[in-house]
Amino acid sequence: MARSRLTPERAAELYEAVLDLLREVGYDALTMDAVAARTRSSKATLYRQWGSKPELVAMSLRNSKPVDISRIDTGSLRGDFHEMVSQADDGQMERDNALMCGLARAVHENEDLLQALRELFIEPEITGLDVLLQRAVARGEISADNPALKYLSHMLVGAFVAHPLISDEPMGQSVLHEYLDAVVLPALGVPAGGD
Amino acid sequence: MARSRLTPERAAELYEAVLDLLREVGYDALTMDAVAARTRSSKATLYRQWGSKPELVAMSLRNSKPVDISRIDTGSLRGDFHEMVSQADDGQMERDNALMCGLARAVHENEDLLQALRELFIEPEITGLDVLLQRAVARGEISADNPALKYLSHMLVGAFVAHPLISDEPMGQSVLHEYLDAVVLPALGVPAGGD
Repeated sequence: MARSRLTPERAAELYEAVLDLLREVGYDALTMDAVAARTRSSKATLYRQWGSKPELVAMSLRNSKPVDISRIDTGSLRGDFHEMVSQADDGQMERDNALMCGLARAVHENEDLLQALRELFIEPEITGLDVLLQRAVARGEISADNPALKYLSHMLVGAFVAHPLISDEPMGQSVLHEYLDAVVLPALGVPAGGD
Repeated sequence: MARSRLTPERAAELYEAVLDLLREVGYDALTMDAVAARTRSSKATLYRQWGSKPELVAMSLRNSKPVDISRIDTGSLRGDFHEMVSQADDGQMERDNALMCGLARAVHENEDLLQALRELFIEPEITGLDVLLQRAVARGEISADNPALKYLSHMLVGAFVAHPLISDEPMGQSVLHEYLDAVVLPALGVPAGGD
């Protein structure tokens, strides 16, 4: 019942403050004290609501992704993927990327953070993608035993991580649309071009 | 001429020490003083030989990859890719991954490190991959204007970065062999199965 005390607006404010602090000081230096001070809330509230720092961080990341992938339904897998990219925001992608880089080392060193991220942030995203894939299987666009299905996240994450290392061209929608057509859809066996 | 003073064995020792320090303290806390102390060399030697900390770090990473990709030549792209994975070492991959996670944030915050990594570590790898791809084009296995060619690194990096986030199965040769057949070769339009 304590969980019901925060309004969605107040929770969104808290999540935003956590991401700001993450960008400023990184995961290791991010303390519940600092979050409480920044948001003028009590540490007791934070712990009651989120349980732990890893869970608070994971939920803040999840909240920063307003697109519910599973609700995208254009009638084709190609259309769904491109719509997913179109609903993203270039500035947001840059900020997300900075955040994920900041967390990469922390994830490697904190097993509890890895577990919280998987459960609260990564798995919901993968579940959303699976909804799109299962619809495409049902429509006969892709085969249910396509070996690339389990690697969809690998392909998408790769674009985000590799691109800034290799290219001066900023990461954004145009790169992702091209990557979908050049790599993701061919790997899944969806023919190039229109639907 | 000062550059000729270090033997390859001594340089390899220095590179190894730099990677150890990176793993222990991270990029920001890695100082040329610490490298000098650890390796019983003078800071003057380090600066004369490598110019700067970003260049020393980039060369240390490059030295940790003993496989010269461009020398792999099995007669088919599928064979070349799988040979590349077979020459890697599972323990080495785990260590590389830990290192790259440690560097992810530093790369985002230090433009000079990004530039050194690109020039001394990433571009030589991409050049090696390009040799394999160009041979495959010459043999008629893939088309020179295949839009997936420029995204090969994105695909490969993706497997390394995404896998530990998603799966408890350790990253290693078996995952990579499967990923090559499920994703990379189909995206390039190389048919599944044997040659």
